[in-house]
Amino acid sequence: MNRDVFYMGEALKEAKRAFTKDEVPVGAVIVHRGTIIGRAYNQIETLRDPTAHAEMIAITQAAAHLRNERLIGCSLYVTIEPCSMCAGAMVLARIKDLVYAADDLKTGACGSIVNIVNHNKLNHKVKVRKGLLRQEASLLIEEFFKRRRRTRYSGRNLDQVSG
Amino acid sequence: MNRDVFYMGEALKEAKRAFTKDEVPVGAVIVHRGTIIGRAYNQIETLRDPTAHAEMIAITQAAAHLRNERLIGCSLYVTIEPCSMCAGAMVLARIKDLVYAADDLKTGACGSIVNIVNHNKLNHKVKVRKGLLRQEASLLIEEFFKRRRRTRYSGRNLDQVSG
Repeated sequence: MNRDVFYMGEALKEAKRAFTKDEVPVGAVIVHRGTIIGRAYNQIETLRDPTAHAEMIAITQAAAHLRNERLIGCSLYVTIEPCSMCAGAMVLARIKDLVYAADDLKTGACGSIVNIVNHNKLNHKVKVRKGLLRQEASLLIEEFFKRRRRTRYSGRNLDQVSG
Repeated sequence: MNRDVFYMGEALKEAKRAFTKDEVPVGAVIVHRGTIIGRAYNQIETLRDPTAHAEMIAITQAAAHLRNERLIGCSLYVTIEPCSMCAGAMVLARIKDLVYAADDLKTGACGSIVNIVNHNKLNHKVKVRKGLLRQEASLLIEEFFKRRRRTRYSGRNLDQVSG
């Protein structure tokens, strides 16, 4: 199997874990010399921490693994286009390659609303590829928000409707 | 004393702690209803974690304190203009006010190289004020890099010169 497809499949497994925990289903893995050294899913609600995106947790794990705050030569696979926070973290971490599945037209910071991973003023640029397993990643997100709307309008959680 | 000056003074105390630990001296505090609920200094090298900027640690602390991933009504004081990662985290956390001391012309994401905290495509905007205690914050950074260059070129740590 194509390596990229394998790693993105692993990121998708993480996204599915988020889905089962009622978190927005985004998953990420970080690969160094063919080995996954960071893997995580979005945990914003579980940890009640706005910084707990999948990419951030995976970056912290990978840095701990390498005992280095710079992830030289590492590739990050994630199911949705990273936001400004995560894209900024990738530049700080010197991530070499970013592979993401689906665009995020509302907050994506790798081309959609701004481009942080390839900014002419920043001192590190990340190579970006996208579109791999896009449909699977998008469908998971769509299904998640469909389910959330159903739950919120069912009367059980009416107080959350405006949340 | 002016409240803003007091809180920025507290952020500066955090930056000085970073300085004594040989970390790039940046400090931050988060204020909610007049109380400091998050305070931190940059710990990138101590934790060997590229995401461990002062603002990020303070945001995680404040969210834990409020038991809420949204820091509604909170003000963040920081000694240097936030980067893309930290500015992105502030938008995700719905920080109300950002007050920062000195511009960061190389990586600042609140107007210097890009503006993430007031982006027309993002669904939250942060009110920004700047310039408070700028000189103190800048001098601390300058002194830090002067010291680092002295140490690195002294022969004691020659292996780090290209680091």
